[in-house]
Amino acid sequence: MPSFHLTLAYDGANYHGWQRQPGQKTIQAELERALAFVTQREVTAIGSGRTDAGVHALGQAVSLAVDTKLASRDLRRALNAQLPTDIVVKDVRRTVEGFHAIRDSVSKRYRYVFDDGAVRDVFRRAYCWKVHERLDVEAMRQAAQRLLGTHDFRSFESQHPQRATSVRTIHDVIVRRVAGEAGQGRGEGGFPVFASCQDAEAIHFEIAADGFLYNMVRAIAGTLYDVGRGARPASWLAEVVDAQTRQAAGMTAPPQGLFLMRVDYRDSVFLEPPGGCA
Amino acid sequence: MPSFHLTLAYDGANYHGWQRQPGQKTIQAELERALAFVTQREVTAIGSGRTDAGVHALGQAVSLAVDTKLASRDLRRALNAQLPTDIVVKDVRRTVEGFHAIRDSVSKRYRYVFDDGAVRDVFRRAYCWKVHERLDVEAMRQAAQRLLGTHDFRSFESQHPQRATSVRTIHDVIVRRVAGEAGQGRGEGGFPVFASCQDAEAIHFEIAADGFLYNMVRAIAGTLYDVGRGARPASWLAEVVDAQTRQAAGMTAPPQGLFLMRVDYRDSVFLEPPGGCA
Repeated sequence: MPSFHLTLAYDGANYHGWQRQPGQKTIQAELERALAFVTQREVTAIGSGRTDAGVHALGQAVSLAVDTKLASRDLRRALNAQLPTDIVVKDVRRTVEGFHAIRDSVSKRYRYVFDDGAVRDVFRRAYCWKVHERLDVEAMRQAAQRLLGTHDFRSFESQHPQRATSVRTIHDVIVRRVAGEAGQGRGEGGFPVFASCQDAEAIHFEIAADGFLYNMVRAIAGTLYDVGRGARPASWLAEVVDAQTRQAAGMTAPPQGLFLMRVDYRDSVFLEPPGGCA
Repeated sequence: MPSFHLTLAYDGANYHGWQRQPGQKTIQAELERALAFVTQREVTAIGSGRTDAGVHALGQAVSLAVDTKLASRDLRRALNAQLPTDIVVKDVRRTVEGFHAIRDSVSKRYRYVFDDGAVRDVFRRAYCWKVHERLDVEAMRQAAQRLLGTHDFRSFESQHPQRATSVRTIHDVIVRRVAGEAGQGRGEGGFPVFASCQDAEAIHFEIAADGFLYNMVRAIAGTLYDVGRGARPASWLAEVVDAQTRQAAGMTAPPQGLFLMRVDYRDSVFLEPPGGCA
Protein backbone atom coordinates (compact mmCIF):
# COMPACT_ATOMS: atom_id res chain seq x y z
CA MET A 1 0.00 0.00 0.00
CA PRO A 2 1.40 3.47 -0.85
CA SER A 3 3.06 5.05 2.20
CA PHE A 4 3.49 8.76 2.80
CA HIS A 5 5.38 11.30 4.89
CA LEU A 6 3.46 14.52 5.50
CA THR A 7 4.84 17.77 6.88
CA LEU A 8 2.22 19.74 8.79
CA ALA A 9 2.09 23.23 10.22
CA TYR A 10 -0.63 24.18 12.64
CA ASP A 11 -1.69 26.88 15.01
CA GLY A 12 -2.42 24.87 18.14
CA ALA A 13 -4.38 27.64 19.88
CA ASN A 14 -7.79 26.17 19.13
CA TYR A 15 -6.98 22.48 19.54
CA HIS A 16 -6.70 19.97 22.33
CA GLY A 17 -3.33 18.94 21.01
CA TRP A 18 -2.36 16.44 18.36
CA GLN A 19 -3.93 13.23 19.58
CA ARG A 20 -7.43 12.10 18.68
CA GLN A 21 -9.76 12.12 21.73
CA PRO A 22 -13.50 11.55 21.85
CA GLY A 23 -15.44 14.81 21.81
CA GLN A 24 -12.35 17.01 21.47
CA LYS A 25 -11.09 19.05 18.56
CA THR A 26 -7.61 17.71 17.77
CA ILE A 27 -5.16 18.00 14.90
CA GLN A 28 -5.07 14.26 14.28
CA ALA A 29 -8.87 14.07 14.10
CA GLU A 30 -9.03 16.95 11.61
CA LEU A 31 -6.32 15.41 9.46
CA GLU A 32 -7.89 11.97 9.51
CA ARG A 33 -11.28 13.45 8.59
CA ALA A 34 -9.71 15.23 5.60
CA LEU A 35 -7.88 12.04 4.61
CA ALA A 36 -11.12 10.02 4.76
CA PHE A 37 -12.88 12.59 2.58
CA VAL A 38 -10.10 12.75 0.01
CA THR A 39 -9.22 9.06 -0.24
CA GLN A 40 -12.59 7.51 0.69
CA ARG A 41 -10.67 5.23 3.04
CA GLU A 42 -10.27 5.10 6.78
CA VAL A 43 -6.73 6.22 7.45
CA THR A 44 -4.70 6.40 10.66
CA ALA A 45 -2.25 9.30 10.71
CA ILE A 46 0.72 8.75 13.00
CA GLY A 47 2.33 11.93 14.29
CA SER A 48 6.00 12.04 15.26
CA GLY A 49 4.93 13.25 18.68
CA ARG A 50 1.85 14.32 20.57
CA THR A 51 1.94 18.06 20.82
CA ASP A 52 -0.12 19.29 23.79
CA ALA A 53 -3.08 21.65 23.70
CA GLY A 54 -1.91 25.09 22.60
CA VAL A 55 1.43 23.90 21.22
CA HIS A 56 2.16 24.83 17.60
CA ALA A 57 3.97 23.11 14.77
CA LEU A 58 5.88 24.38 11.79
CA GLY A 59 7.06 20.95 10.82
CA GLN A 60 5.16 18.11 12.47
CA ALA A 61 5.89 14.85 10.64
CA VAL A 62 3.16 12.33 9.97
CA SER A 63 3.26 8.84 8.48
CA LEU A 64 0.36 7.02 6.91
CA ALA A 65 -0.45 4.31 4.41
CA VAL A 66 -3.47 4.51 2.16
CA ASP A 67 -4.66 2.84 -1.00
CA THR A 68 -4.75 5.85 -3.33
CA LYS A 69 -3.70 6.64 -6.87
CA LEU A 70 -3.26 10.33 -6.05
CA ALA A 71 0.17 11.82 -6.68
CA SER A 72 1.78 13.41 -3.61
CA ARG A 73 1.25 16.90 -4.91
CA ASP A 74 -2.42 16.30 -5.59
CA LEU A 75 -2.92 14.65 -2.22
CA ARG A 76 -1.46 17.76 -0.58
CA ARG A 77 -3.76 20.09 -2.49
CA ALA A 78 -6.84 18.00 -1.84
CA LEU A 79 -6.10 17.78 1.88
CA ASN A 80 -5.49 21.52 2.17
CA ALA A 81 -8.85 22.18 0.53
CA GLN A 82 -10.50 20.10 3.27
CA LEU A 83 -8.51 21.18 6.32
CA PRO A 84 -9.44 24.15 8.50
CA THR A 85 -7.38 27.29 7.91
CA ASP A 86 -5.26 26.76 11.04
CA ILE A 87 -3.85 23.46 9.78
CA VAL A 88 -1.89 23.08 6.56
CA VAL A 89 -0.08 20.24 4.83
CA LYS A 90 3.17 21.81 3.65
CA ASP A 91 4.54 18.77 1.92
CA VAL A 92 3.69 15.19 0.97
CA ARG A 93 6.30 12.60 -0.05
CA ARG A 94 6.02 8.92 -0.94
CA THR A 95 8.07 6.73 1.38
CA VAL A 96 9.17 3.13 1.59
CA GLU A 97 6.50 0.80 2.97
CA GLY A 98 6.40 0.58 6.72
CA PHE A 99 7.73 4.11 7.29
CA HIS A 100 6.74 5.17 10.81
CA ALA A 101 6.91 8.79 11.97
CA ILE A 102 7.79 7.95 15.58
CA ARG A 103 10.01 4.88 15.25
CA ASP A 104 12.05 6.14 12.32
CA SER A 105 12.72 9.70 13.50
CA VAL A 106 16.40 10.57 13.78
CA SER A 107 16.16 13.99 15.37
CA LYS A 108 13.69 16.67 16.32
CA ARG A 109 13.93 20.40 16.78
CA TYR A 110 11.74 22.59 18.97
CA ARG A 111 11.62 26.34 19.48
CA TYR A 112 10.39 28.03 22.63
CA VAL A 113 9.53 31.73 22.35
CA PHE A 114 9.70 34.13 25.32
CA ASP A 115 8.45 37.71 25.03
CA ASP A 116 10.09 40.01 27.57
CA GLY A 117 9.18 43.28 25.88
CA ALA A 118 8.11 46.29 27.94
CA VAL A 119 4.70 46.32 26.27
CA ARG A 120 2.90 43.14 25.28
CA ASP A 121 2.62 42.36 21.59
CA VAL A 122 -1.07 41.91 20.85
CA PHE A 123 -0.36 39.91 17.68
CA ARG A 124 1.80 37.39 19.44
CA ARG A 125 -0.20 36.63 22.54
CA ALA A 126 -0.99 33.04 21.47
CA TYR A 127 2.53 32.41 20.18
CA CYS A 128 4.86 33.19 23.07
CA TRP A 129 5.22 33.21 26.82
CA LYS A 130 4.85 36.84 27.96
CA VAL A 131 7.17 37.27 30.92
CA HIS A 132 7.32 40.41 33.00
CA GLU A 133 11.01 40.52 33.77
CA ARG A 134 13.70 41.48 31.31
CA LEU A 135 15.65 38.28 30.64
CA ASP A 136 19.44 37.93 30.56
CA VAL A 137 19.98 36.18 27.24
CA GLU A 138 23.70 35.64 27.75
CA ALA A 139 23.09 33.83 31.05
CA MET A 140 20.40 31.70 29.41
CA ARG A 141 22.76 30.85 26.56
CA GLN A 142 25.50 29.79 28.95
CA ALA A 143 23.04 27.72 30.93
CA ALA A 144 21.67 26.01 27.84
CA GLN A 145 25.15 24.91 26.78
CA ARG A 146 25.22 22.62 29.83
CA LEU A 147 22.51 20.52 28.24
CA LEU A 148 24.56 19.54 25.21
CA GLY A 149 25.54 15.91 24.91
CA THR A 150 24.15 12.65 26.21
CA HIS A 151 22.52 12.78 29.64
CA ASP A 152 19.71 11.25 31.65
CA PHE A 153 17.16 14.07 31.43
CA ARG A 154 14.59 12.73 33.90
CA SER A 155 14.81 16.03 35.82
CA PHE A 156 12.86 17.54 32.94
CA GLU A 157 10.30 14.74 32.60
CA SER A 158 6.81 15.54 33.89
CA GLN A 159 5.48 12.02 33.83
CA HIS A 160 7.41 8.79 33.95
CA PRO A 161 5.78 6.38 31.57
CA GLN A 162 7.17 2.92 30.89
CA ARG A 163 10.06 4.21 28.85
CA ALA A 164 13.14 2.08 28.47
CA THR A 165 15.34 5.07 29.21
CA SER A 166 15.28 8.81 29.89
CA VAL A 167 18.72 9.25 28.35
CA ARG A 168 18.73 11.55 25.33
CA THR A 169 21.37 13.26 23.23
CA ILE A 170 21.06 16.99 22.64
CA HIS A 171 23.15 18.09 19.68
CA ASP A 172 22.17 21.75 19.30
CA VAL A 173 20.96 24.55 21.54
CA ILE A 174 20.51 28.18 20.54
CA VAL A 175 19.39 31.10 22.68
CA ARG A 176 18.93 34.26 20.72
CA ARG A 177 17.26 37.63 21.13
CA VAL A 178 15.37 38.51 17.99
CA ALA A 179 14.37 42.06 17.24
CA GLY A 180 10.96 43.18 16.15
CA GLU A 181 10.08 45.93 13.75
CA ALA A 182 12.25 48.60 15.34
CA GLY A 183 15.27 46.33 15.40
CA GLN A 184 14.86 45.48 11.76
CA GLY A 185 14.50 49.03 10.61
CA ARG A 186 11.73 50.30 8.41
CA GLY A 187 13.47 50.71 5.07
CA GLU A 188 13.70 48.51 2.02
CA GLY A 189 14.68 45.02 2.99
CA GLY A 190 14.03 45.65 6.63
CA PHE A 191 10.38 44.73 6.72
CA PRO A 192 9.31 41.87 8.88
CA VAL A 193 6.67 39.57 7.46
CA PHE A 194 4.44 40.17 10.43
CA ALA A 195 3.27 43.46 11.71
CA SER A 196 3.97 43.68 15.40
CA CYS A 197 4.50 46.13 18.21
CA GLN A 198 7.37 48.31 17.13
CA ASP A 199 9.50 47.47 20.14
CA ALA A 200 8.55 43.81 20.02
CA GLU A 201 11.34 41.58 21.10
CA ALA A 202 11.42 37.89 21.57
CA ILE A 203 13.88 35.36 22.85
CA HIS A 204 14.06 32.17 20.87
CA PHE A 205 15.34 29.05 22.57
CA GLU A 206 15.90 26.26 20.09
CA ILE A 207 16.87 22.73 20.95
CA ALA A 208 17.55 19.71 18.76
CA ALA A 209 17.93 16.15 20.04
CA ASP A 210 17.49 12.54 19.04
CA GLY A 211 14.26 12.63 21.02
CA PHE A 212 12.50 14.33 23.91
CA LEU A 213 10.80 13.20 27.10
CA TYR A 214 7.26 14.29 27.96
CA ASN A 215 7.13 18.07 28.51
CA MET A 216 10.93 18.17 28.42
CA VAL A 217 11.30 21.33 26.33
CA ARG A 218 8.78 23.24 28.41
CA ALA A 219 10.49 22.14 31.64
CA ILE A 220 13.84 23.28 30.27
CA ALA A 221 12.29 26.57 29.14
CA GLY A 222 10.89 27.13 32.64
CA THR A 223 14.32 26.39 34.09
CA LEU A 224 16.08 28.76 31.67
CA TYR A 225 13.53 31.39 32.65
CA ASP A 226 14.76 31.20 36.27
CA VAL A 227 18.29 31.79 34.99
CA GLY A 228 17.18 34.59 32.66
CA ARG A 229 15.42 36.51 35.41
CA GLY A 230 18.43 36.12 37.68
CA ALA A 231 16.90 33.79 40.26
CA ARG A 232 19.55 31.14 39.52
CA PRO A 233 23.07 31.17 38.02
CA ALA A 234 23.84 29.64 34.63
CA SER A 235 25.74 26.81 36.32
CA TRP A 236 22.51 25.69 37.96
CA LEU A 237 21.52 23.74 34.85
CA ALA A 238 24.18 21.12 35.48
CA GLU A 239 22.94 20.69 39.06
CA VAL A 240 19.38 20.24 37.84
CA VAL A 241 20.42 17.54 35.40
CA ASP A 242 22.50 15.79 38.07
CA ALA A 243 19.67 15.85 40.61
CA GLN A 244 17.65 13.36 38.53
CA THR A 245 14.36 14.58 39.92
CA ARG A 246 11.71 16.84 38.41
CA GLN A 247 11.54 18.85 41.65
CA ALA A 248 15.04 20.17 41.00
CA ALA A 249 14.04 21.98 37.80
CA GLY A 250 11.97 25.10 37.15
CA MET A 251 8.31 25.32 36.24
CA THR A 252 6.81 23.88 33.09
CA ALA A 253 6.61 26.85 30.72
CA PRO A 254 3.15 27.41 29.19
CA PRO A 255 2.32 25.59 25.96
CA GLN A 256 1.68 28.54 23.63
CA GLY A 257 5.40 29.43 23.41
CA LEU A 258 6.32 26.00 22.01
CA PHE A 259 6.77 25.16 18.33
CA LEU A 260 7.72 21.78 16.88
CA MET A 261 10.05 23.00 14.14
CA ARG A 262 11.10 19.88 12.29
CA VAL A 263 11.58 16.14 12.47
CA ASP A 264 14.38 14.50 10.54
CA TYR A 265 14.52 11.08 8.91
CA ARG A 266 17.12 9.20 6.93
CA ASP A 267 17.00 10.11 3.23
CA SER A 268 16.59 6.43 2.41
CA VAL A 269 12.98 6.37 3.65
CA PHE A 270 11.87 8.80 0.95
CA LEU A 271 10.95 7.75 -2.58
CA GLU A 272 10.53 11.37 -3.73
CA PRO A 273 12.20 14.74 -3.15
CA PRO A 274 10.22 17.35 -1.20
CA GLY A 275 7.61 18.95 -3.43
CA GLY A 276 6.05 21.52 -1.13
CA CYS A 277 7.61 24.23 0.94
CA ALA A 278 8.96 22.11 3.79
CA MET B 1 -8.20 69.48 32.31
CA PRO B 2 -5.15 67.30 31.53
CA SER B 3 -5.19 66.19 27.90
CA PHE B 4 -3.51 63.09 26.51
CA HIS B 5 -2.36 61.44 23.31
CA LEU B 6 -2.41 57.63 23.44
CA THR B 7 -0.82 55.24 20.96
CA LEU B 8 -2.72 51.96 20.72
CA ALA B 9 -2.02 48.64 19.07
CA TYR B 10 -4.75 46.08 18.68
CA ASP B 11 -5.59 42.83 17.00
CA GLY B 12 -8.92 43.67 15.38
CA ALA B 13 -9.91 40.06 14.72
CA ASN B 14 -12.32 39.82 17.64
CA TYR B 15 -13.82 43.32 17.47
CA HIS B 16 -16.50 45.13 15.55
CA GLY B 17 -14.04 47.86 14.73
CA TRP B 18 -13.01 50.95 16.64
CA GLN B 19 -16.28 52.75 17.20
CA ARG B 20 -18.52 52.22 20.22
CA GLN B 21 -21.82 50.56 19.26
CA PRO B 22 -24.55 49.28 21.55
CA GLY B 23 -24.25 45.55 22.18
CA GLN B 24 -21.01 45.17 20.18
CA LYS B 25 -17.46 44.50 21.31
CA THR B 26 -15.40 47.45 20.05
CA ILE B 27 -11.96 48.87 20.74
CA GLN B 28 -13.30 52.25 21.82
CA ALA B 29 -15.72 50.65 24.30
CA GLU B 30 -12.94 48.52 25.82
CA LEU B 31 -10.64 51.51 26.12
CA GLU B 32 -13.31 53.73 27.65
CA ARG B 33 -14.20 51.01 30.13
CA ALA B 34 -10.56 50.75 31.20
CA LEU B 35 -10.31 54.56 31.42
CA ALA B 36 -13.41 54.73 33.62
CA PHE B 37 -12.01 52.07 35.94
CA VAL B 38 -8.60 53.69 36.22
CA THR B 39 -9.66 57.35 36.52
CA GLN B 40 -13.10 56.92 38.11
CA ARG B 41 -14.38 59.38 35.52
CA GLU B 42 -16.46 59.01 32.40
CA VAL B 43 -14.05 59.60 29.52
CA THR B 44 -14.62 59.84 25.78
CA ALA B 45 -11.71 58.51 23.76
CA ILE B 46 -11.44 59.98 20.27
CA GLY B 47 -9.68 57.76 17.75
CA SER B 48 -7.88 59.26 14.75
CA GLY B 49 -10.04 57.09 12.52
CA ARG B 50 -12.67 54.37 12.73
CA THR B 51 -10.98 51.14 11.83
CA ASP B 52 -13.52 48.58 10.58
CA ALA B 53 -14.23 45.15 12.02
CA GLY B 54 -11.20 42.92 11.57
CA VAL B 55 -8.80 45.79 10.83
CA HIS B 56 -5.69 45.98 13.02
CA ALA B 57 -3.63 48.82 14.41
CA LEU B 58 -0.01 49.16 15.35
CA GLY B 59 -0.28 52.85 16.00
CA GLN B 60 -3.83 54.10 16.37
CA ALA B 61 -3.82 57.59 17.92
CA VAL B 62 -6.36 58.59 20.53
CA SER B 63 -7.05 61.91 22.22
CA LEU B 64 -8.82 62.37 25.53
CA ALA B 65 -9.12 64.79 28.42
CA VAL B 66 -9.58 63.57 31.96
CA ASP B 67 -9.24 65.00 35.43
CA THR B 68 -6.45 62.79 36.77
CA LYS B 69 -3.26 63.20 38.74
CA LEU B 70 -1.72 60.11 37.20
CA ALA B 71 1.55 60.55 35.35
CA SER B 72 1.48 59.40 31.72
CA ARG B 73 3.59 56.38 32.44
CA ASP B 74 1.37 55.26 35.30
CA LEU B 75 -1.77 55.84 33.26
CA ARG B 76 -0.34 53.57 30.54
CA ARG B 77 0.45 50.82 33.03
CA ALA B 78 -2.90 51.04 34.76
CA LEU B 79 -4.79 50.92 31.46
CA ASN B 80 -2.80 47.95 30.20
CA ALA B 81 -3.62 46.06 33.40
CA GLN B 82 -7.34 46.58 32.65
CA LEU B 83 -7.39 46.06 28.88
CA PRO B 84 -7.90 42.67 27.23
CA THR B 85 -4.73 41.03 25.89
CA ASP B 86 -5.51 41.95 22.27
CA ILE B 87 -5.43 45.70 22.97
CA VAL B 88 -2.41 47.52 24.34
CA VAL B 89 -1.55 51.13 25.09
CA LYS B 90 1.98 51.53 23.77
CA ASP B 91 2.44 55.12 24.82
CA VAL B 92 0.78 57.97 26.71
CA ARG B 93 1.84 61.62 26.36
CA ARG B 94 0.46 64.80 27.86
CA THR B 95 -0.68 67.27 25.20
CA VAL B 96 -1.84 70.84 25.00
CA GLU B 97 -5.47 71.34 25.96
CA GLY B 98 -7.91 70.80 23.14
CA PHE B 99 -5.72 68.32 21.29
CA HIS B 100 -7.97 66.33 18.96
CA ALA B 101 -6.87 63.06 17.34
CA ILE B 102 -8.85 63.58 14.14
CA ARG B 103 -8.69 67.35 13.58
CA ASP B 104 -5.02 67.71 14.41
CA SER B 105 -3.62 64.77 12.47
CA VAL B 106 -1.02 65.72 9.86
CA SER B 107 -0.51 62.36 8.19
CA LYS B 108 -1.40 58.72 8.48
CA ARG B 109 0.24 55.54 7.32
CA TYR B 110 -1.45 52.21 6.55
CA ARG B 111 -0.07 48.84 5.57
CA TYR B 112 -1.95 46.25 3.58
CA VAL B 113 -0.59 42.68 3.66
CA PHE B 114 -1.14 40.17 0.84
CA ASP B 115 -0.08 36.54 1.19
CA ASP B 116 0.51 34.90 -2.18
CA GLY B 117 2.52 31.94 -0.91
CA ALA B 118 2.02 28.50 -2.40
CA VAL B 119 0.90 27.13 0.96
CA ARG B 120 -1.16 29.20 3.38
CA ASP B 121 0.52 30.39 6.54
CA VAL B 122 -1.58 29.16 9.44
CA PHE B 123 -0.16 31.76 11.82
CA ARG B 124 -1.07 34.67 9.60
CA ARG B 125 -4.59 33.82 8.54
CA ALA B 126 -6.14 36.72 10.49
CA TYR B 127 -3.41 39.17 9.46
CA CYS B 128 -3.33 39.09 5.68
CA TRP B 129 -5.35 38.57 2.54
CA LYS B 130 -4.57 35.08 1.25
CA VAL B 131 -4.69 35.29 -2.52
CA HIS B 132 -4.36 32.28 -4.79
CA GLU B 133 -2.43 33.82 -7.65
CA ARG B 134 1.24 34.69 -7.54
CA LEU B 135 1.38 38.49 -7.65
CA ASP B 136 3.70 40.59 -9.81
CA VAL B 137 5.22 42.95 -7.26
CA GLU B 138 7.03 45.07 -9.81
CA ALA B 139 3.79 45.78 -11.68
CA MET B 140 2.06 46.63 -8.39
CA ARG B 141 4.92 48.97 -7.47
CA GLN B 142 4.70 50.80 -10.80
CA ALA B 143 0.94 51.07 -10.47
CA ALA B 144 1.15 52.42 -6.93
CA GLN B 145 3.49 55.21 -8.04
CA ARG B 146 0.60 56.68 -10.04
CA LEU B 147 -1.15 57.48 -6.77
CA LEU B 148 1.54 59.83 -5.51
CA GLY B 149 0.63 63.49 -5.24
CA THR B 150 -2.60 65.39 -4.83
CA HIS B 151 -5.66 63.92 -6.52
CA ASP B 152 -9.39 63.56 -6.10
CA PHE B 153 -9.59 59.96 -4.87
CA ARG B 154 -13.34 59.46 -5.00
CA SER B 155 -12.80 56.40 -7.22
CA PHE B 156 -11.60 54.67 -4.05
CA GLU B 157 -14.34 55.92 -1.74
CA SER B 158 -16.97 53.35 -0.76
CA GLN B 159 -19.45 55.79 0.71
CA HIS B 160 -19.80 59.47 0.02
CA PRO B 161 -20.54 61.18 3.28
CA GLN B 162 -20.84 64.95 3.64
CA ARG B 163 -17.16 65.56 3.18
CA ALA B 164 -15.98 68.91 1.96
CA THR B 165 -13.61 67.25 -0.47
CA SER B 166 -12.31 63.89 -1.62
CA VAL B 167 -8.97 65.41 -2.58
CA ARG B 168 -6.05 63.93 -0.67
CA THR B 169 -2.28 64.09 -0.94
CA ILE B 170 -0.36 60.82 -0.94
CA HIS B 171 3.29 61.38 -0.11
CA ASP B 172 4.63 57.83 0.14
CA VAL B 173 3.82 54.45 -1.36
CA ILE B 174 5.85 51.28 -0.94
CA VAL B 175 5.23 47.85 -2.44
CA ARG B 176 7.62 45.24 -1.20
CA ARG B 177 7.87 41.47 -1.12
CA VAL B 178 9.01 40.37 2.31
CA ALA B 179 10.51 36.97 2.88
CA GLY B 180 9.53 34.58 5.60
CA GLU B 181 11.73 32.25 7.54
CA ALA B 182 13.44 30.68 4.55
CA GLY B 183 14.25 34.06 3.06
CA GLN B 184 15.79 35.29 6.26
CA GLY B 185 17.97 32.27 6.75
CA ARG B 186 18.12 30.18 9.87
CA GLY B 187 21.43 31.17 11.42
CA GLU B 188 22.45 33.70 14.03
CA GLY B 189 20.86 37.02 13.27
CA GLY B 190 18.53 35.54 10.72
CA PHE B 191 15.67 34.62 13.02
CA PRO B 192 12.32 36.21 12.47
CA VAL B 193 10.38 37.18 15.57
CA PHE B 194 7.45 35.06 14.53
CA ALA B 195 7.51 31.45 13.64
CA SER B 196 5.80 30.99 10.32
CA CYS B 197 5.60 28.66 7.37
CA GLN B 198 9.12 28.30 6.06
CA ASP B 199 8.27 29.53 2.61
CA ALA B 200 5.94 32.21 3.91
CA GLU B 201 5.98 35.26 1.79
CA ALA B 202 4.01 38.42 2.02
CA ILE B 203 3.60 41.53 -0.01
CA HIS B 204 3.41 44.73 2.00
CA PHE B 205 1.72 47.71 0.45
CA GLU B 206 2.27 50.84 2.53
CA ILE B 207 0.70 54.18 1.89
CA ALA B 208 1.03 57.51 3.70
CA ALA B 209 -1.18 60.53 3.10
CA ASP B 210 -2.57 63.60 4.78
CA GLY B 211 -5.78 61.66 5.20
CA PHE B 212 -7.86 58.84 3.73
CA LEU B 213 -11.42 58.44 2.50
CA TYR B 214 -13.69 55.68 3.78
CA ASN B 215 -12.32 52.25 2.76
CA MET B 216 -9.80 54.00 0.49
CA VAL B 217 -6.79 51.81 1.34
CA ARG B 218 -8.76 48.60 0.92
CA ALA B 219 -10.15 49.80 -2.44
CA ILE B 220 -6.63 50.65 -3.60
CA ALA B 221 -5.38 47.27 -2.36
CA GLY B 222 -8.13 45.51 -4.33
CA THR B 223 -7.17 47.52 -7.40
CA LEU B 224 -3.46 46.73 -7.01
CA TYR B 225 -4.45 43.07 -6.70
CA ASP B 226 -5.94 43.19 -10.20
CA VAL B 227 -2.63 44.58 -11.46
CA GLY B 228 -0.60 42.05 -9.47
CA ARG B 229 -2.48 39.07 -10.87
CA GLY B 230 -2.12 40.43 -14.41
CA ALA B 231 -5.77 41.27 -15.07
CA ARG B 232 -4.86 44.94 -15.61
CA PRO B 233 -1.71 46.84 -16.60
CA ALA B 234 0.13 49.12 -14.16
CA SER B 235 -1.01 52.16 -16.13
CA TRP B 236 -4.61 51.32 -15.25
CA LEU B 237 -4.28 53.08 -11.88
CA ALA B 238 -4.19 56.50 -13.53
CA GLU B 239 -7.36 55.64 -15.48
CA VAL B 240 -9.11 54.56 -12.31
CA VAL B 241 -8.24 57.81 -10.55
CA ASP B 242 -9.35 59.84 -13.58
CA ALA B 243 -12.69 58.00 -13.84
CA GLN B 244 -13.89 59.56 -10.57
CA THR B 245 -16.26 56.72 -9.85
CA ARG B 246 -15.97 53.76 -7.47
CA GLN B 247 -17.11 51.39 -10.23
CA ALA B 248 -13.85 52.02 -12.10
CA ALA B 249 -11.69 50.54 -9.32
CA GLY B 250 -11.15 46.99 -8.13
CA MET B 251 -12.83 45.22 -5.24
CA THR B 252 -12.55 46.31 -1.63
CA ALA B 253 -9.84 44.06 -0.20
CA PRO B 254 -10.84 42.19 2.98
CA PRO B 255 -10.28 43.93 6.32
CA GLN B 256 -7.89 41.49 7.98
CA GLY B 257 -4.96 42.53 5.75
CA LEU B 258 -5.14 46.16 6.88
CA PHE B 259 -3.02 47.76 9.61
CA LEU B 260 -3.14 51.37 10.76
CA MET B 261 0.59 51.91 11.24
CA ARG B 262 0.90 55.42 12.62
CA VAL B 263 -0.67 58.84 12.83
CA ASP B 264 1.51 61.93 12.92
CA TYR B 265 0.95 65.25 14.69
CA ARG B 266 2.92 68.44 14.99
CA ASP B 267 5.51 68.25 17.77
CA SER B 268 4.01 71.37 19.30
CA VAL B 269 0.92 69.50 20.53
CA PHE B 270 2.99 67.35 22.88
CA LEU B 271 4.03 68.44 26.35
CA GLU B 272 6.17 65.33 26.87
CA PRO B 273 8.49 63.13 24.82
CA PRO B 274 7.28 59.60 24.06
CA GLY B 275 7.74 57.39 27.10
CA GLY B 276 6.55 54.04 25.85
CA CYS B 277 7.59 52.06 22.85
CA ALA B 278 5.75 53.99 20.16
